[in-house]
Amino acid sequence: MKNGRLITVEGIEGAGKSTVVGVIRDWLESRHIPCVLTREPGGTPVAEAIRQILLSPDFKESIQSETELLLMFAGRAQHISEVVAPALAAGKWVVSDRYLDASYAYQGGGRGLPFERIQWLEHWIAGACQPELTFLLDLPPAVGLARAKKRGPHDRIEQERLDFFERVRAAYLIRAGQFPDRIMVVDALQSAEEVQALLLKKLAELQETSQNF
Amino acid sequence: MKNGRLITVEGIEGAGKSTVVGVIRDWLESRHIPCVLTREPGGTPVAEAIRQILLSPDFKESIQSETELLLMFAGRAQHISEVVAPALAAGKWVVSDRYLDASYAYQGGGRGLPFERIQWLEHWIAGACQPELTFLLDLPPAVGLARAKKRGPHDRIEQERLDFFERVRAAYLIRAGQFPDRIMVVDALQSAEEVQALLLKKLAELQETSQNF
Repeated sequence: MKNGRLITVEGIEGAGKSTVVGVIRDWLESRHIPCVLTREPGGTPVAEAIRQILLSPDFKESIQSETELLLMFAGRAQHISEVVAPALAAGKWVVSDRYLDASYAYQGGGRGLPFERIQWLEHWIAGACQPELTFLLDLPPAVGLARAKKRGPHDRIEQERLDFFERVRAAYLIRAGQFPDRIMVVDALQSAEEVQALLLKKLAELQETSQNF
Repeated sequence: MKNGRLITVEGIEGAGKSTVVGVIRDWLESRHIPCVLTREPGGTPVAEAIRQILLSPDFKESIQSETELLLMFAGRAQHISEVVAPALAAGKWVVSDRYLDASYAYQGGGRGLPFERIQWLEHWIAGACQPELTFLLDLPPAVGLARAKKRGPHDRIEQERLDFFERVRAAYLIRAGQFPDRIMVVDALQSAEEVQALLLKKLAELQETSQNF
């Protein structure tokens, strides 16, 4: 059985994740590397239905932090078993717009849930489906939110206050410090060209270490 | 702060839970005891939306056991914080059609997930919101499913095979053996009158031990 590779893209709202996913996709396609682009929360019909609950601004009832974390991992269990694990087993590269680190950042840093609980869920649900490379697009939340605002109305999580996103950003950076070999922090205030150049250099390095191609 | 009491009703499909909830409600109302009737999965708008995902037979994708368990506890976290805990704090009696034991029975016994994982989630999410009295309506699954079939089309979980419900029943009975003081096993093959007489006797005992009324 061939083994694919899992690349994740992380960052707060307006950091430019979609653009970065596009750059990675173009790079993979230009090399005829079979790949799957996906996202969290979501990635399967059941997980997208869970995403609807998570992001809907319509619930008058406030969603508990514990509920939010459990919903994230419920969708993730589905996403991993239906999409990520089969694709990796088939030798494909998987690019996910947000993945495990996002739970540490949002539900850990943002909501203040203990990291140990998230870790327990991660070990259970994700097991060996760990990303090999993560691009963390970092920028001040005030800048990111201003960018995101231009795209349309905010979802439930985007409606949080600035200090929430400051905590999310800090938790992301703590993760980067804990996993320096896996997580590449990219300054998202740079121009699109500068970001792209950094990505392409890193992807080329990753491919060199690959035994599959 | 007054403390209410939490009564739960458990059992497989067609065991007569709704009838029993009605008997308890009538008994409470006749004594002018303020009560809240609720159910799991569900009990709040967010938890009912989660219930839709859990029970919908429409998802072609099969729902993973892990996803099912996490969705159950996601809804439960919401249900406890929005409904159960506030009602108990207000001195009300809460009657829930299914609660924690159902996860041990369905996701533990039925799906085969380790009881330790369910216990970890229970300690985290339910904390002190434990039922004081549980009526476990027990009957052979073949009988219960035949009864439930008359009510209309089966939901996703009701569509499981008979051996699934045999495992659910066994896990329920194991719980009853572990918590004999809390869980009262009621033979649901008895007549409605016989079941009602047992319930009323037990409820009267429970009220005698109450300091609140």
